[in-house]
Amino acid sequence: MIKIHHLNFSRSTRIIWLMEELGEPYEIVPHTRDPNTFRSPQTLDRIHPLGKAPVIEDGALVMAESGAIIEYVIATYGRGKLIPAQSGSAWARYIGWLHFAEGSAMMPLLVHLLGTLTGGLPDGLKGFIAPDIDKTLKYIAAEIPDNGYLTDAFSGADIQMSYVLEVARMGKLLTAYPSLEKYMARLEQRPAYKRSIERGGPVRLPLG
Amino acid sequence: MIKIHHLNFSRSTRIIWLMEELGEPYEIVPHTRDPNTFRSPQTLDRIHPLGKAPVIEDGALVMAESGAIIEYVIATYGRGKLIPAQSGSAWARYIGWLHFAEGSAMMPLLVHLLGTLTGGLPDGLKGFIAPDIDKTLKYIAAEIPDNGYLTDAFSGADIQMSYVLEVARMGKLLTAYPSLEKYMARLEQRPAYKRSIERGGPVRLPLG
Repeated sequence: MIKIHHLNFSRSTRIIWLMEELGEPYEIVPHTRDPNTFRSPQTLDRIHPLGKAPVIEDGALVMAESGAIIEYVIATYGRGKLIPAQSGSAWARYIGWLHFAEGSAMMPLLVHLLGTLTGGLPDGLKGFIAPDIDKTLKYIAAEIPDNGYLTDAFSGADIQMSYVLEVARMGKLLTAYPSLEKYMARLEQRPAYKRSIERGGPVRLPLG
Repeated sequence: MIKIHHLNFSRSTRIIWLMEELGEPYEIVPHTRDPNTFRSPQTLDRIHPLGKAPVIEDGALVMAESGAIIEYVIATYGRGKLIPAQSGSAWARYIGWLHFAEGSAMMPLLVHLLGTLTGGLPDGLKGFIAPDIDKTLKYIAAEIPDNGYLTDAFSGADIQMSYVLEVARMGKLLTAYPSLEKYMARLEQRPAYKRSIERGGPVRLPLG
């Protein structure tokens, strides 16, 4: 059975959600942030040298990085669910979203959020990320059809991208994109998502 | 034939290198940075709404994001080269590196580099990324055997991670990790790497 090392208020809720969507058994090993600094606890360093979450254990395999975990779990336990047919352009778009999330998309959004949490960003850095923030959110908004998902049907890509949009929302960047707020509401209505929050706690940091 | 939209001094050299390793035909469409700001040119916006490189075109498919492009090209044209056997823990480690590169690894290294290029980082942000920089470089160094690669044999993961270490090197972060400098030298001695630099120009920004 897959063991999910779960950090509260974090990316690792995605993996609980994934297992709930697949209906596969799993076990949560909880790790708790420092309530003042929100830093990850040292208990995570004992599981993986990066000291991050999510990390999964599957037998002897210890694996980090959300996008890779989603690919691995769906390939190994998905029985064809949550992924377009292997090969071809639908699959290419799917892995494109899996990589885009923590690649191009997250960096400017997370730096913006860290800026708001740590007392602001210097103008040079702010100027560097501002155009990327706009392009990123516009691009995502343009790619999601009304009432739809990132690919033809709900998939691992939506699970992966949800945290990116959560980071944008925490940085108060989503108010200009009502279609993205609606997309998030659509995801949050899924029964498997609701069960992941019940089991893993809220994703959103308790910001002031 | 795959068309590679290549930006000088950038990540997209990786895709030229990949095609050279596979010995597959490809075409380069060059895009040139602003020589003063190093910003990407608007010609890239016409290819993909994110305005980034690399982007590939393969028939009607237009695809961004280095890690996804590497997965797609190897799955579609690799004939089993540059990837461990599908499924199992060697494959899991391989896709772990593909996602780690532009996921957890790049963010702190790139923010550090942007700080040195844009006049420094505020203490709050610097304090936030410093532990991640150390953990990231230590982790990579620990995972590469003497004279070896990230997985049992040279693979797409080494191509993907090379740019991460280049960003660290440009930020003068590699001097403390001689084994990583040796690994980079090992990659740079590959004939296919050399051909990619001949065709695509140097990867390293011409910093003062």
